Amino acid sequence: MSDKRPVVIDLRFARESVVSALRSAFPDRPVIDMGDPVSADRDLSEAEFAVVWKPDPELFRRATGLKAIFSGGAGVDHILSAYELPDLPIIRFVDRSLTDRMSEWVVWQCLHHLRNGIAYASQQRDRVWHEIAEQPEARDVTVGVMGLGVLGTDAVRKLKVMGFDVIGWSRRAKSIEGIKTFDAATLDAFLGQTDILVGLLPLTGDTRGIYDRALFSKLRRTGPLGGPIFLNAGRGGSQKENELTKCLADGTLNAASLDVFEKEPLPADSPLWTMPNVIVTPHAAAASDVRALFRHVEAQIARVEAGKALEFVVDRTSGY
Amino acid sequence: MSDKRPVVIDLRFARESVVSALRSAFPDRPVIDMGDPVSADRDLSEAEFAVVWKPDPELFRRATGLKAIFSGGAGVDHILSAYELPDLPIIRFVDRSLTDRMSEWVVWQCLHHLRNGIAYASQQRDRVWHEIAEQPEARDVTVGVMGLGVLGTDAVRKLKVMGFDVIGWSRRAKSIEGIKTFDAATLDAFLGQTDILVGLLPLTGDTRGIYDRALFSKLRRTGPLGGPIFLNAGRGGSQKENELTKCLADGTLNAASLDVFEKEPLPADSPLWTMPNVIVTPHAAAASDVRALFRHVEAQIARVEAGKALEFVVDRTSGY
Repeated sequence: MSDKRPVVIDLRFARESVVSALRSAFPDRPVIDMGDPVSADRDLSEAEFAVVWKPDPELFRRATGLKAIFSGGAGVDHILSAYELPDLPIIRFVDRSLTDRMSEWVVWQCLHHLRNGIAYASQQRDRVWHEIAEQPEARDVTVGVMGLGVLGTDAVRKLKVMGFDVIGWSRRAKSIEGIKTFDAATLDAFLGQTDILVGLLPLTGDTRGIYDRALFSKLRRTGPLGGPIFLNAGRGGSQKENELTKCLADGTLNAASLDVFEKEPLPADSPLWTMPNVIVTPHAAAASDVRALFRHVEAQIARVEAGKALEFVVDRTSGY
Repeated sequence: MSDKRPVVIDLRFARESVVSALRSAFPDRPVIDMGDPVSADRDLSEAEFAVVWKPDPELFRRATGLKAIFSGGAGVDHILSAYELPDLPIIRFVDRSLTDRMSEWVVWQCLHHLRNGIAYASQQRDRVWHEIAEQPEARDVTVGVMGLGVLGTDAVRKLKVMGFDVIGWSRRAKSIEGIKTFDAATLDAFLGQTDILVGLLPLTGDTRGIYDRALFSKLRRTGPLGGPIFLNAGRGGSQKENELTKCLADGTLNAASLDVFEKEPLPADSPLWTMPNVIVTPHAAAASDVRALFRHVEAQIARVEAGKALEFVVDRTSGY
C-alpha cells in the first residue's frame, strides 16, 4: 500500500494506549510495533524512523537505516543512555497536551501547599474545624522554577496568573517577559529568594543529583510558609533521595511533592511514602498522550519530506 | 484629635486580627470596637459608619446615627437577617485579596479533582504505585460556575487559563467575554453541560437550598470524570446538606469539596467529615484580610466625604 519505509515503535508505555493509538496513526507507512511479539525477530534495517521510550538496548544495532529518533516523552535521558546510540537527530516530544498537563500538576501542588492541603486533610480526618491563621496569599510566596524550557515557561506563566511571585532559573541565562531569571552563576541568589522550588530540569550530566542537601539549605527560610517546599516533576535522577528524605525529616525542607524518583516504581520500603509532609504521585504529572505523540511524529516526518528542518532536536552536548 | 464622628466595629473574626488591624486603621476618626469589653455600654448614637460581621442584633437599635453599614465579607446575608435593620446603604466587601484567595481555593479544588488527588492520596497511604489510566486534561472537563459577581468572574478567568472549559450561570443574564453564560431560564441547559459545579452564590431567598437532589441530578453524567463533582465556597445555606450527603453516597455526585455548611462549625457527627469522596475545609476559602477590609472602608468613606457615590452597594431586593 505504500512505498514508504517503516517507522519502528518501541514504547514502554501501557500496552493498550499504544495499540489503540496505532490504529489511526501513520496511515501511509508500514509500522513495526516492537511491543507485538511477532516483531521480535523482524528485520529492522529498512526502518526510517524510530519512536521510543526506554528502548531495547539492541534496537539501534538492528535498525541501521534510521534517519531520526523520536523520544516518547519530554525527556531524552532514556535514549542518550542507550548503548551503541547512532549519530542521528533525536527529537524531544513537545506537545500542547503534555505541557498543559505538567502545568496542571505544578499549579495544583503549589496551591496545595500554599493553602495548607496537608494540614486540612489531617484536620478533616480528626473532624477538627479550625481555620489555620495567617494564611498567606499567592503573591506573598515566591515560586522558583528550575528549568525554563517549554514546560517551565508554561508553568511560570500559569503560576503568575494564579498570583504567585515567580522567578526562574536555567543553566544558560534566559529571558522571559515579566519574570526575573537567573543562571548557573547566580544559582545561590535564586535559591535565597525561593519559597517553593519547582524542579522541571532534564536529566543530564549537569543536573544529576543537583537537588541535594547543599542546594536545599540555600532556599529561603524566612518566607511566609515557615520553610521551603520542594516539588520535582522533572527527573528522579536529579534528586539525591537520601539527602532529600533527611532534609524533609529535619526541617531543612518543610514539605515536598514528588512525581519522580531515583528508582521507579518507588520501592515500598521508601520512607517517602509515609512521611506526613510528602505528596507522592507515580510519575503521572504529565503522562504522554500517545495519540498526541504520534501526531507530533507525523508532523515532523512531514517536515522532513517537505525538505524542512526537524524541530525540537536535542543538543547532545547539553543533553536536552 | 478629630471632629469626625466615630466608626463602630463589630466583627466576629479572630480577635487578634481585628486588634492588630485597628492599630493602623482610621487614623483621623474615633473607633468604637465592640469586641473590647469597655465598649459594651457605650453610647453609639454618634457613630457615623459601622463595619460588621454577624453583628450583635442590638447594634442597629443603639447606633441610630449611622450613614452606612459595611459588611466584613463578600456576603451580606448576616446583615440582612438582622432584627431592626435600618434603611441604610449596605456595602459589600470587594477586595483584590479576597478575590484572589477565593480563586486560589476554586482552582486548587478543581485541579485536585481533575488530577485524582483523592485517589492518589489513598494510593500513597497504601504505598501503591499505579498511574490512573485515562487521565483527562483540563480542556476535556467543563466547569460550571454559579454566581458571576466579582468572585465568580475572577474564578472563571483563572480556570480558563488553566485550560478548563468554563461556563457560567447567574440569575440575571450576564455577559463575560469568551465564555458561554446562562440565566434563570436556562439553568437546566447549564447543568446538563457541567462536569464540575462551582457554587459562588450569595445567600438570598432565591438561593437558599438551591443545591438539592433535583439540581444535582441534572448535572452531566457522561463527562470524562465519570460523574459530576460539586464545589461550594459560597454559603452553606444554599445547600440542602441532607440531600447533598445522600447524593454523594449514592453516586448522583462523584465527589465534593465543601468550604461552607448549613451549620458552622460543621458538627462532629456530620457524615461529610469522613466520606471518602469529600474534601472539607473550615470556611477558609477566602478569609477576609482585616487590614484590607479597613482600607476598603476608608476608601469608601473618603468617597462619601468627597461627595461621590458609595460603591458596591447591596440591592436589598435581590439580596446581594
